[in-house]
Amino acid sequence: MLSTYQELETPDFDTWIISHDIVGKNFADGQISLTWHDGKISNFHYLWLREHCPCSLCHSDVTREQILDVLTLPNDLVPVSLELTENGYLVVIWSDGHHKSIYHPGWLRANSYDDWARQDQHHKKPTWDASFSLPIFEYEAVMEDDRSCYKWLSALDRYGLVMLKNVPTDLGTVGSVASRIGYVKSSNFGELFEVETKPDADSNAYLSVGLPLHTDLPTREIQPGLQFLHCLINDADGGESIFADTFHIAKVLEREQPSIYELITRLKFPFSNRADYRDYRFAAPLIELDRDGAPLEARVNTFLHAPITNMPHECVPKAYEARNALLKATLEDRFRLYHRLQAGEMVIFDNRRVLHARTEFFPNTGARKLQGCYMDRDELKSAIRMLERANRQRGEEPLSPYVSP
Amino acid sequence: MLSTYQELETPDFDTWIISHDIVGKNFADGQISLTWHDGKISNFHYLWLREHCPCSLCHSDVTREQILDVLTLPNDLVPVSLELTENGYLVVIWSDGHHKSIYHPGWLRANSYDDWARQDQHHKKPTWDASFSLPIFEYEAVMEDDRSCYKWLSALDRYGLVMLKNVPTDLGTVGSVASRIGYVKSSNFGELFEVETKPDADSNAYLSVGLPLHTDLPTREIQPGLQFLHCLINDADGGESIFADTFHIAKVLEREQPSIYELITRLKFPFSNRADYRDYRFAAPLIELDRDGAPLEARVNTFLHAPITNMPHECVPKAYEARNALLKATLEDRFRLYHRLQAGEMVIFDNRRVLHARTEFFPNTGARKLQGCYMDRDELKSAIRMLERANRQRGEEPLSPYVSP
Repeated sequence: MLSTYQELETPDFDTWIISHDIVGKNFADGQISLTWHDGKISNFHYLWLREHCPCSLCHSDVTREQILDVLTLPNDLVPVSLELTENGYLVVIWSDGHHKSIYHPGWLRANSYDDWARQDQHHKKPTWDASFSLPIFEYEAVMEDDRSCYKWLSALDRYGLVMLKNVPTDLGTVGSVASRIGYVKSSNFGELFEVETKPDADSNAYLSVGLPLHTDLPTREIQPGLQFLHCLINDADGGESIFADTFHIAKVLEREQPSIYELITRLKFPFSNRADYRDYRFAAPLIELDRDGAPLEARVNTFLHAPITNMPHECVPKAYEARNALLKATLEDRFRLYHRLQAGEMVIFDNRRVLHARTEFFPNTGARKLQGCYMDRDELKSAIRMLERANRQRGEEPLSPYVSP
Repeated sequence: MLSTYQELETPDFDTWIISHDIVGKNFADGQISLTWHDGKISNFHYLWLREHCPCSLCHSDVTREQILDVLTLPNDLVPVSLELTENGYLVVIWSDGHHKSIYHPGWLRANSYDDWARQDQHHKKPTWDASFSLPIFEYEAVMEDDRSCYKWLSALDRYGLVMLKNVPTDLGTVGSVASRIGYVKSSNFGELFEVETKPDADSNAYLSVGLPLHTDLPTREIQPGLQFLHCLINDADGGESIFADTFHIAKVLEREQPSIYELITRLKFPFSNRADYRDYRFAAPLIELDRDGAPLEARVNTFLHAPITNMPHECVPKAYEARNALLKATLEDRFRLYHRLQAGEMVIFDNRRVLHARTEFFPNTGARKLQGCYMDRDELKSAIRMLERANRQRGEEPLSPYVSP
């Protein structure tokens, strides 16, 4: 039983910077109002603030996870007193008999939710076309230096496509690079997969045919978020890589062909894998929008089309027209970024945003071998936050994200 | 280059049963019409049928994935002739100069998309309350016999909760059971995780405190679909398990408290993990609906609540009210299924649908140890289809799903 009251700094493991002092405090009408020394005011609802009491009765001192049962809090909860400690912490005594809650001013400032505090929550990510300069980073720098790593990951998060150069061409290196970010997502193709021609291929990727621009694993409810492709050898003729930003294509289609855009974001198109050992199927819009109408992910893969049997019969011609219009757009040079991978290069891209393709290659002219793996988007976001947290802990200059020239 | 024409049976690896013969065929107005000997008529749009030509120029004879470039098909494509072979296959010669397309009648029937063929696509899953009889299966039977396995998996798919009994209590067995279905999804807790008290716990699950009804990993964009929990020993006092079907709770709340239902299905509630090595966060409705307004998943976890900073300030009290109303509903006995796990039992449940809880246990009264793992929903669907496919290949009686008594 955790029954001993203990003061904790915050209800999480993060380090919070005290950038502003609290210079005024009062409470009324269900809210505690704090005035900061830059004049900004934070208003916290009683139940909100009470729930996030960091003490060890409310949050485990081991896991920092909540143990307070929020349903035990009375709806008429009010503060009995507010005080500031010498080092600027806010102390609240509550009407529910809870000993006291002590709040870190850095945490309070960072978790404020008044309009002024919520303004910079929505960073719109820039999209890109054929004129995009592929962001390139040095393998050794991103593996060893946190500031370089942050540039690399912020570029990946923002643009959905980055490249590393001077990567050792050993098998397994792609796994080490991936683990710099987080946990690999395995699939029926394994944890790490080798892209080369195979006699009993269970994917067109393992033939030498060209692969049109596509997302991997569209047959799953959630396609892999990140894809890593490490070029070990590319001596064969052909085998050039192409990339395209579907979020950009979506933006252009919405403007130029709104009726097509409407259909590809609304109709569910079915995909199925082909194998004698697994039978994955999923149907979803080719461009899936989030609740705010912004693109969340694309699902494009012409070699895994399943028969469209899931919509009213009369819709099918319109579905074909819309799908083909999107596929035609992916062929337009204004959207396509070309790069022929060389041994020692590794591309990492958001598989749910950025389509990738390769032109046909000719195995009798030389070898071509890539090694790859997948990862959820969650891992990238976590890695970025952990770099920011570590930087705060060290008290260093804020990290700056990569911005395309 | 795949340039040799080769006849393939179907564009996939499935086995199709010829249950009905084609007795009539013609084409007009963009569609080929086939009349079956039971009088039903299937209409296929030209581009639809042309795309799914199974020949080796259109689908790789190795992978069965599409290699036909659909954008090369002329919009004015028409059939030049239709014929039936002696064994009832449909042969189409097309105006685009393609050699010929030969379609399996079982595949054509099964992939028909006229209204009559689409009628049984939408199976509504039954939901359950406290009166539900936990579907229980024998470990040995499901591991060794495909018909038993099918019952087990269909019960899991339909009700989201099943139990195995007489499971060997060896560490790692949960992995073998999981691999009867598909690939395990690993996370920061490992591929297989052991649920017991740990000194440096990174989750409340690894303390002895009670865990209120919750979903695991709500801090990820996609919570694990299936969760396996294998009881190795449960000798401690306490530690009873509780389950609840959120799809049922949602149905009841929609009827009884529509304004609450509206808020929990629309507002995004933030969750964050607590750890000094990973920082996962995600915000989503507590009940997420699909495009048809049916529940897709729940996201409920009181020990991983993050501060609500992502909605207009004046919405916060309503958000608290709605969230607490849902949490109160999970405490109602009409929704809760109780079962105290014994050594040798394993529960498997849809973590995105069925909440699980355990009451506090007391380690000084005895040991308690579970081993668990996660898996995507896709794997279950694939396993069910593969059992159906294998059954068709053997030409046996159709498999019958489990139905609760």
